[in-house]
Amino acid sequence: MARIIKHIQTGPKEIEGADGEPIYICMCGLSKKPPFCDGHHKLTRDEEPGKLYRYDQDGKRQELADSFGDLATY
Amino acid sequence: MARIIKHIQTGPKEIEGADGEPIYICMCGLSKKPPFCDGHHKLTRDEEPGKLYRYDQDGKRQELADSFGDLATY
Repeated sequence: MARIIKHIQTGPKEIEGADGEPIYICMCGLSKKPPFCDGHHKLTRDEEPGKLYRYDQDGKRQELADSFGDLATY
Repeated sequence: MARIIKHIQTGPKEIEGADGEPIYICMCGLSKKPPFCDGHHKLTRDEEPGKLYRYDQDGKRQELADSFGDLATY
């Protein structure tokens, strides 16, 4: 009851919340309080174009061979 | 410049938007218009506990061997 999703965005989506306050939604997938941004997208800053990575829960990154092919994308 | 994230939720998160209108944020990872829910979490209904899956962009599911270990989770 879990699934692997490919995240391509490197920053949050801003939406308008109650009272016009901005709400930042995590798009990179690395937030510790999803769906809300907590700034962990900074970890993606030096990702290289065309490469695919995995992160562990401490934010440690490893490059992955992209053998996934057609994969659901967020 | 992309990363694999493990999604464990099977339905959206409701947050309060402008004018008090509810906004449904995709948590399952399968929406075609992220970060907004588009109902694709229905695909997860018959996922089995303890199993890990991948979906292609047409919503076709395959079970994956869970060799990912400690993986960032949404």
